[in-house]
Amino acid sequence: MFQFWTSLYRKYATERIPGFEGMENPGYCTGSFDGLHHPSDDDDDEMVDIAGATLDFSTTEDDPPLSTGGYEEYSSSRAAGMNGNGPTKLVDPLEDPVPGVGTYEDFNTIDWVREKSKDRDRHREITNKSRQSTVALLHSVSDAFSGWLLMLLVGLMSGALAGGIDIAAHWLTDMKGGVCLIGFWFNHEHCCWTSNETTFQERDRCPQWQSWAELITGTSEGAFAYIVNYLMYIFWALLFSFLAVTLVRAFAPYACGSGIPEIKTILSGFIIRGYLGKWTLIIKTITLVLAVSSGLSLGKEGPLVHVACCCANILCHLFTKYRKNEAKRREVLSAAAAVGVSVAFGAPIGGVLFSLEEVSYYFPLKTLWRSFFAALVAAFTLRSINPFGNSRLVLFYVEFHAPWHLVELAPFILLGIFGGLWGALFIRANIAWCRRRKSTRLGHYPVIEVLVVAALTAVLAFPNSYTRMSGAELISELFNDCSLLDSSQLCGYKQPTNTSDTGAGNSLADRPAGKGLYTALWQLALALVFKMLITVITFGMKVPSGLFIPSMAIGAIAGRLLGVGMEQLAYYNHDWFIFKGWCSPGADCITPGLYAMVGAAACLGGVTRMTVSLVVIMFELTGGLEYIVPLMAATMTSKWVADAFGREGIYEAHIRLNGYPFLEPKEEFEHSSLTVDVMRPRRSDPALAVLTQEGMTVGEVEALVESTHYSGFPVVVSKESQRLVGFALRRDLLISIDNARKRQEGIVSASQVVFTEHAPSQAPDAPPPLRLRGIMDLSPFTVTDHTPMDITVDIFRKLGLRQCLVTHNGRLLGIITKKDILKHMAQIANRDPDSILFN
Amino acid sequence: MFQFWTSLYRKYATERIPGFEGMENPGYCTGSFDGLHHPSDDDDDEMVDIAGATLDFSTTEDDPPLSTGGYEEYSSSRAAGMNGNGPTKLVDPLEDPVPGVGTYEDFNTIDWVREKSKDRDRHREITNKSRQSTVALLHSVSDAFSGWLLMLLVGLMSGALAGGIDIAAHWLTDMKGGVCLIGFWFNHEHCCWTSNETTFQERDRCPQWQSWAELITGTSEGAFAYIVNYLMYIFWALLFSFLAVTLVRAFAPYACGSGIPEIKTILSGFIIRGYLGKWTLIIKTITLVLAVSSGLSLGKEGPLVHVACCCANILCHLFTKYRKNEAKRREVLSAAAAVGVSVAFGAPIGGVLFSLEEVSYYFPLKTLWRSFFAALVAAFTLRSINPFGNSRLVLFYVEFHAPWHLVELAPFILLGIFGGLWGALFIRANIAWCRRRKSTRLGHYPVIEVLVVAALTAVLAFPNSYTRMSGAELISELFNDCSLLDSSQLCGYKQPTNTSDTGAGNSLADRPAGKGLYTALWQLALALVFKMLITVITFGMKVPSGLFIPSMAIGAIAGRLLGVGMEQLAYYNHDWFIFKGWCSPGADCITPGLYAMVGAAACLGGVTRMTVSLVVIMFELTGGLEYIVPLMAATMTSKWVADAFGREGIYEAHIRLNGYPFLEPKEEFEHSSLTVDVMRPRRSDPALAVLTQEGMTVGEVEALVESTHYSGFPVVVSKESQRLVGFALRRDLLISIDNARKRQEGIVSASQVVFTEHAPSQAPDAPPPLRLRGIMDLSPFTVTDHTPMDITVDIFRKLGLRQCLVTHNGRLLGIITKKDILKHMAQIANRDPDSILFN
Repeated sequence: MFQFWTSLYRKYATERIPGFEGMENPGYCTGSFDGLHHPSDDDDDEMVDIAGATLDFSTTEDDPPLSTGGYEEYSSSRAAGMNGNGPTKLVDPLEDPVPGVGTYEDFNTIDWVREKSKDRDRHREITNKSRQSTVALLHSVSDAFSGWLLMLLVGLMSGALAGGIDIAAHWLTDMKGGVCLIGFWFNHEHCCWTSNETTFQERDRCPQWQSWAELITGTSEGAFAYIVNYLMYIFWALLFSFLAVTLVRAFAPYACGSGIPEIKTILSGFIIRGYLGKWTLIIKTITLVLAVSSGLSLGKEGPLVHVACCCANILCHLFTKYRKNEAKRREVLSAAAAVGVSVAFGAPIGGVLFSLEEVSYYFPLKTLWRSFFAALVAAFTLRSINPFGNSRLVLFYVEFHAPWHLVELAPFILLGIFGGLWGALFIRANIAWCRRRKSTRLGHYPVIEVLVVAALTAVLAFPNSYTRMSGAELISELFNDCSLLDSSQLCGYKQPTNTSDTGAGNSLADRPAGKGLYTALWQLALALVFKMLITVITFGMKVPSGLFIPSMAIGAIAGRLLGVGMEQLAYYNHDWFIFKGWCSPGADCITPGLYAMVGAAACLGGVTRMTVSLVVIMFELTGGLEYIVPLMAATMTSKWVADAFGREGIYEAHIRLNGYPFLEPKEEFEHSSLTVDVMRPRRSDPALAVLTQEGMTVGEVEALVESTHYSGFPVVVSKESQRLVGFALRRDLLISIDNARKRQEGIVSASQVVFTEHAPSQAPDAPPPLRLRGIMDLSPFTVTDHTPMDITVDIFRKLGLRQCLVTHNGRLLGIITKKDILKHMAQIANRDPDSILFN
Repeated sequence: MFQFWTSLYRKYATERIPGFEGMENPGYCTGSFDGLHHPSDDDDDEMVDIAGATLDFSTTEDDPPLSTGGYEEYSSSRAAGMNGNGPTKLVDPLEDPVPGVGTYEDFNTIDWVREKSKDRDRHREITNKSRQSTVALLHSVSDAFSGWLLMLLVGLMSGALAGGIDIAAHWLTDMKGGVCLIGFWFNHEHCCWTSNETTFQERDRCPQWQSWAELITGTSEGAFAYIVNYLMYIFWALLFSFLAVTLVRAFAPYACGSGIPEIKTILSGFIIRGYLGKWTLIIKTITLVLAVSSGLSLGKEGPLVHVACCCANILCHLFTKYRKNEAKRREVLSAAAAVGVSVAFGAPIGGVLFSLEEVSYYFPLKTLWRSFFAALVAAFTLRSINPFGNSRLVLFYVEFHAPWHLVELAPFILLGIFGGLWGALFIRANIAWCRRRKSTRLGHYPVIEVLVVAALTAVLAFPNSYTRMSGAELISELFNDCSLLDSSQLCGYKQPTNTSDTGAGNSLADRPAGKGLYTALWQLALALVFKMLITVITFGMKVPSGLFIPSMAIGAIAGRLLGVGMEQLAYYNHDWFIFKGWCSPGADCITPGLYAMVGAAACLGGVTRMTVSLVVIMFELTGGLEYIVPLMAATMTSKWVADAFGREGIYEAHIRLNGYPFLEPKEEFEHSSLTVDVMRPRRSDPALAVLTQEGMTVGEVEALVESTHYSGFPVVVSKESQRLVGFALRRDLLISIDNARKRQEGIVSASQVVFTEHAPSQAPDAPPPLRLRGIMDLSPFTVTDHTPMDITVDIFRKLGLRQCLVTHNGRLLGIITKKDILKHMAQIANRDPDSILFN
């Protein structure tokens, strides 16, 4: 840890934080190809331990980045000997001394099977050694527990960061309204706590806390004061959002958005170097606070997942086991996603299920247990920081008293339908808007866009108290059940005329709406329309932005409106047969807060298509199994309705928009094509480029590699027989040949390249052969040409393959890659197959 | 449903329930090979829709059951034409008109990939048709929702059955003590409810309920009354256990044990016909009640999982989608396992996680959501039946008031160590005992064994009130926090001498133990020893028996003892530095009930090695996140300690004992062997038996099949080239040839068997060729001989393979089956490889 901070400091001190080169490059947030091809050139390359492997993508045009070189600088930058040519039985990258062999380039997919096998080799070695000495035994034990230690650290760090973000966001949000005279670093609530002059009732008003109007004009009343407050509100909103977008642009372009689509893609095996780096973490943490405080219609819950994943990725560097293995690191990142949701909602079990259901690709059961541990540690760290000042774990604490009735399932299902429709509509509108941003001039001015949206939000939000407050506060208020002492407008019921009738205990329930409530309803209706429109254009801007809170807010408003409507309907029509028996006069029968909660779950479900995790998160908020059934009914309806309009959730839609190579594990491949229809080469293409296991020279191999852009080449016995021996990756080939030319004597272009176990006999005057069996994958995956595509897709998904060779009657026929599959799927769905950008 | 009951009734009426043939066969419960080779011959063959496929295993000796015939009766019993010989491009068992092709024999492993592909074909067909007509569209919609409907039915049925079992077990358990005079069908509690004469304090004593001594001797006091009660207790225990074991033996030998090991195996793809049939369901339900009531040291929680799975399997018959597809059916069974735990503990989320973590093999996310739905439905059905009469969902409702202190983690971890040690010891002792039962004469007398153990249990349990009560009652009492009014012996603290000091509110806490408590502690210590010994010999007997309750009881006793110890330590040593600050005089600092709970979790964790699901189940019992940390600490410690003595949980140990072909998904393959070391044929063996795609005659094929016992044969281009074309299953080959001989003209032994797409030209006088391309699997899985075994094992696990072909440089070299892998793993672990019985 110490090392990390010193290196960070040194970097900062010497290099003055290098700026982002593609400053005027549009679309780096919505993740367009252009944006991704300009990763920040600073030290964010945390994803692998190769320093200096900076790739110049500007030379590539349409080919996958894999096809570019970029290995030269690397292999020459290290002075390592080349002696890996012996007839090793297995490819063992651990013991392979050629540096770079077995690593990956940026924007490439890892080979899960190989990585896991590598880790097992490592583990086997440690276990074998542990029998020899005490030191090795201790090493073995510490290796076994390093996973737990890492989880503990991830939990602690994420919990602490989440606490800091909460506190800072609270403070800055309150700053928009006024300032604390006894110390500007106190937020409103904290400021008034320290004051002794306030009563519990008036705890929001204390002389120490002054609104900007009071401070500037000396009075808090009148039109002028209102205008001053209004202007200050807009000023702070613009300032915060400007700071947020500028910081993101300048230091960490990857810090924008919610991050969940990219994390899903990374967890499925893709490499985006720097996406989880320290600059991203620092900038995302700061700008998240600013973006939330600016009053934009966004939440901090999604970005917290990104923050937790950054923490995990950085902490992985402390342990060799995780630093060196991309598959093991992804296990940790899966757990970190659970940690993110755990701290966002205070729901550890819901977080683990979220990670399992929504984010993760490969989630072994061992990880489940560790994720749970990390999520718990994080939740308790957050609670001990106590950012909300109420020592509650959960974000929205709700306590309902009245049970629900079976009849109420009808309005709950209505809310589900609303949530589903809204989800489908939102996804379409938001994707259309993001597409427009990418394709038109709009995307060229991200700072102006953010400022315009922030100004619009501030101008429209201030007059309405329900939009002026932050999303989380709004949801809290909407979820709340009205208590006797509640002074909220939402509880503006008429006082009962004769209290003797109903009794004091029931005086809360069964009351007609008063003027306050009607005003609140109007304001809520306006807020609903405003939130719906502004959220569509906000999500995808160049600031950190989460969708959970805005979606939930929309659902909660709709739910509360329906809830109050139902309540009043029941009040005026006690004698209707549907209310008979359970909603008699004086009974506390309908809880508008519950409707708000159900609505929030329905809308969030419609947008993200979460199911179990959503219900469990909501269950952890209320803590009672009682209300699971309404939540479940609404979530199920919402998912069905939304799925009818399109099966993709918002995250999958953004993944597709950005062309990431993500093979959705939930969707079934429905078409009846065969592998032979999808593989390359097609009938019209030239034959497959193959290497033979002997007989090719170094020059021929180099010519073949350079004339094509494939990421790997099958090795066959002979071109005539096409009998498959193995598979050699382009990167490994180039690195090895280059290395051999430099370090190994006698390797010239005429040298034979030999993939067999024993070198063939050759003329005595011939140059020594170059043995490359060590870099060849001796167990390439194969399927037959007649394999139905659904089975092939299943194999790709379950084993996490990058490519697979296709045979016919034992002869090599072609190759099928993840990209081929995704292109084929896009073609079937009548989409542009060229939207798949990476391999 | 109606159809099912009528058919059941008809069966009963006409056949008088056929008895179990292997009546004197030992070991049918511990699942020995002998026992499994005698499945009941009644109509329990629910697993596939082939009627009459009764297999005679007595002809097989050591070969896997697959090698037997048994297809003849079947194929001749149906009059279906043989016209599947056309050059179909794909194997499509849906359209394949040869009956029996694509189905499985008993004690075989299904082919997951093929089954899922079949279901996708079916789904594709329905989707395509749905565009043509409204009826087809409706069919498609109903097909899509049939899964949900099925889940609803499973939830309702399992919930109802669980409620019935609870009520019946309560009644019969109370019957051991006495009888209700106003109606013998009332249990003790219910009997006294109806009485008006009892106060809340004395709700256990009412004149309507009479103990046997009162009824027989007229008095409830004195030695004679005690002896009468004692004898009656023993009498009922023996009667119940005798009934249970006799019913199991006579009607459903599969109904014994907990069922979880077998369900794990079935879910991993194995077929045990009748294991989830209706007779098993009926008999297991009845005998479970009897076994629980007999006072044996067993619980009903594990068997409830079996009961729920039986319900699911039976209900699957209502829907073609699930009836015909073994993979889809296993998805439903996974959900049913969740339902079982959900009703057992009232913990739906814990149930789903249990199914995910412990039982399931293939658990797609769609199933997660449906499982959750089913688990909720079941839990609410159970609650509306309200068997405990308190409208609580959970089995043990606990409410603690005092928080725990960080110092207490030390005793919690101690409990974890105890749980781990006990778990490891229990597994060893129980497996040793079960092995002895299988190998010695002991296993020949299951009825006598059960009666002896029941008698021993009853004789030893009656004198001690903590062993006399049922396991669930004991746990409830131990978990309970002492309240002011509590009359339990466990709350026998001394009255505070001066109440003014501590105040009435705190009078519960911080009191010295009184005489009652000391007596209770002694009794508990004796109960602990007794339970530990008796549980070892009880689990595995020929009655339905679960392990959850006995394990939890042992842990709860140990925990309560430690808790009271800590409490007294704190009372007498307030000034010790570890108690300073949080355990001052008068403070309510140590909750012995929490210790009991932590101990229960630790012991259950040690025995079953559950982790997340265990913590979540416990969390759902208390409902507060507060106590998750102690539970987690104890569970983690317990798992680590137990794993140090052996990595297998009790269920895995029983699976191994029984030789089921189960590839543990949690365990990593640690050895560095290659596939070539494991595959068959070995170097000394004869060459692999292969078919050629043309040139073999029907007679030659039949001779080859009959001279070997392999379950399938690779098809190659020619014996010289060994280039692989496909794979044909033995069963399919035999069925097809037999069918062709009977139905197709001109097929004689000299007919050529052709696997190619187009028949080769042959002499005009030759008999017509038999085309078998339709039954050949054109996409067999292959790996190369150099593939490390850890990757091969991974492929087998993730894809659910049954066999895989091995190639070397494009030539077919051998075959590797699940059984080969399991044998290899057994060999590595220095176990007998012949303990793996099935393929």
